Amino acid sequence: MSLIVQKFGGTSVGDTKRIALVADMIIKAKKAGDDIVVVVSAMGSSTDKLVKMAREITDKPDTREMDVLLSTGEQTTVALLCMALHARGYKAKSYTGSQIPVSTDDVHTKARILEIDTDKIRKDLNNDFVVVVAGFQGMSSEGDITTLGRGGSDTTAVALATKLMARECQIYTDVDGVYTVDPRVVPLAKRLDKISFEEMLELASLGAKVLQLRAVEFAGKFKVPLRVLSSFKEGSGTLITLEEDIMEKPVLSGIAHNKNEAKLSLSGIPYDFAIAAKVIGPISDANIDVDVIVQEVSADRLVNITFTVNNDDCKEAEQILKRTAKELKAANMLVVNNIAKVSLVGVGMRSHPGIASTMFRALAAEGIEILLISTSEIKVSVIIDEKYLELACRVLHTAFELDKGPEQ
Amino acid sequence: MSLIVQKFGGTSVGDTKRIALVADMIIKAKKAGDDIVVVVSAMGSSTDKLVKMAREITDKPDTREMDVLLSTGEQTTVALLCMALHARGYKAKSYTGSQIPVSTDDVHTKARILEIDTDKIRKDLNNDFVVVVAGFQGMSSEGDITTLGRGGSDTTAVALATKLMARECQIYTDVDGVYTVDPRVVPLAKRLDKISFEEMLELASLGAKVLQLRAVEFAGKFKVPLRVLSSFKEGSGTLITLEEDIMEKPVLSGIAHNKNEAKLSLSGIPYDFAIAAKVIGPISDANIDVDVIVQEVSADRLVNITFTVNNDDCKEAEQILKRTAKELKAANMLVVNNIAKVSLVGVGMRSHPGIASTMFRALAAEGIEILLISTSEIKVSVIIDEKYLELACRVLHTAFELDKGPEQ
Repeated sequence: MSLIVQKFGGTSVGDTKRIALVADMIIKAKKAGDDIVVVVSAMGSSTDKLVKMAREITDKPDTREMDVLLSTGEQTTVALLCMALHARGYKAKSYTGSQIPVSTDDVHTKARILEIDTDKIRKDLNNDFVVVVAGFQGMSSEGDITTLGRGGSDTTAVALATKLMARECQIYTDVDGVYTVDPRVVPLAKRLDKISFEEMLELASLGAKVLQLRAVEFAGKFKVPLRVLSSFKEGSGTLITLEEDIMEKPVLSGIAHNKNEAKLSLSGIPYDFAIAAKVIGPISDANIDVDVIVQEVSADRLVNITFTVNNDDCKEAEQILKRTAKELKAANMLVVNNIAKVSLVGVGMRSHPGIASTMFRALAAEGIEILLISTSEIKVSVIIDEKYLELACRVLHTAFELDKGPEQ
Repeated sequence: MSLIVQKFGGTSVGDTKRIALVADMIIKAKKAGDDIVVVVSAMGSSTDKLVKMAREITDKPDTREMDVLLSTGEQTTVALLCMALHARGYKAKSYTGSQIPVSTDDVHTKARILEIDTDKIRKDLNNDFVVVVAGFQGMSSEGDITTLGRGGSDTTAVALATKLMARECQIYTDVDGVYTVDPRVVPLAKRLDKISFEEMLELASLGAKVLQLRAVEFAGKFKVPLRVLSSFKEGSGTLITLEEDIMEKPVLSGIAHNKNEAKLSLSGIPYDFAIAAKVIGPISDANIDVDVIVQEVSADRLVNITFTVNNDDCKEAEQILKRTAKELKAANMLVVNNIAKVSLVGVGMRSHPGIASTMFRALAAEGIEILLISTSEIKVSVIIDEKYLELACRVLHTAFELDKGPEQ
């Protein structure tokens, strides 16, 4: 019998009424003939409430205890969801991460899954149970409760789907799929039927936050088809699968954007082979996420390096960078707040070298200045003034004919 | 090094501020030189909130899932309390029932403790940790989460104290000890310094709900001294210990009462050796708790049987009793609502046979009619009209000179 893993996020199980609706959706899938394993997150704002309590007690909660605290969230959901399935006449059984067990390393609050024991799950499935697993959590070799960090429930779902050789891993969320561009920015945005893991990775990391990066990576690695669906609206969602399973590859799959960034640059640094490490190292050490990094060496052997961070981290990054500037004898330092990043993503780009220039021309035609350019094999990103973000997205969506729907 | 087990109930850990105060109390005890193992309940109303959610989903939640749900309550508290201890510079480690493990049978929602593994606890204590254990919960041999039922945290504390050979098991609650009578009813009520397990058992079961019956039974059986203290007010509380450790035994230890009861009687039943079973059996089968039972056989071999139940269960008990009355050919059936029970408890009663008659006389002098009398070795209970309850308590408190404090 084929097996589906379904994952429902916090909004989908936000209250007891929503949990009842989720039970109905599970039963529908079960009636269609598949074995069902369900992974759920904590209910809506419950994690925030737990974090708030911890903060009331201490500024720096111990990570082991934080995991004990946070893991109660999904534990609550699995119990309630099983009750809802029972109330509808279906056999269901809940498991915490420790009960499965989902074995992880001991890096509390951001543990990595090492192994999943599926014996209990297989036995329950054979006895016609719907198995409901608490996402986001596991157990270390010490027997301590661990959590997988942000978006960890997606990772749990994909890991289970891999291990159980599921036909599909369905991620139910509050959007009905992956779009060519943020529909709130460009009303003509189109839902993609299919997209490759690689493209989804670029889109996810660029801010189209439908799926957690780690889960997509994992699914791609183990070739488990992922489907993003809405838990509020009927539809087939977007299937994220292997590139070779997508017959007609569109040139572009979508346009991603990130707001609320800041750009920091040092220029005129006397050449040193380790400049990137010396500049970015101290920023990372302060736990500041660095996004785009661009470095160039001028003809006179002076180095310019530019990178972007979240606006919220800008002040701290600036202070660190000041020290580095002095140390490296940089001629200038420049900080620009309120910038945004717009990226074109598509595997078809490989065979269509003209993408970047079409992009630059379209933006130039609207008078949008490009502050920074960064490219990868299937992606072109530009940094622009935040005020032009919506305009840039619309212009590019039209320029690449995404308004008509992806060419697939 | 001597060891103390401290248990803090739901009110004591009602919010994060209270949890911080509890941390301070634990540290005070630790500084005094004892090893400390702490058992905590779920925060204030959190259990009620969880039960409410379950009820929103189904009228009859599965008991296995109910335990998964409810056990999140104490898990939240242990994590927060450890954080508070860390914030104060103390080493602390939390454990759920499954992590210890507290092994129980598999009777979900009212499991019994079979065994407690203390290896981890001893190791942590040797490394100077305060060990914080989630009360009320355990794990079945199947690896399922179980809960011990109402007041289960007291049971966890006493079982741990027994197993760890604690010097004392301290139960912190919202009252500062066991009183000679309910202080809300009789302002002259006095706190007892010491009381025997046996007396406490009678007082607990009669409604002086300071401690859970099972925990007192357990402590008595294993001879672990129990101390009831307030978590809000300094003081030495009441020590519950072996009768032989109490040098001067008072005649009476205290007066307990129960309100909100109803009395049901069948009279004139033709003799049958199994009448009690036939009358009480169907009531118990309907999960109605029966309190006092009195039966007598008249000279003409007609049997009268009377029992009390909670007022809330009275209607249902009445319907069941009607069928029994017909079956047993009872001449009369009588139901009296709004009655109360007042009981005198004291081990000294054994050597002072006049207690009952002093009681009856004191009540008669105030015109309080006694509807039913029931006695045991260390207890005399009378059922009276609820409206006389406060008066009866005051009159008896004075009659037995408890106003002056217990004679110890």
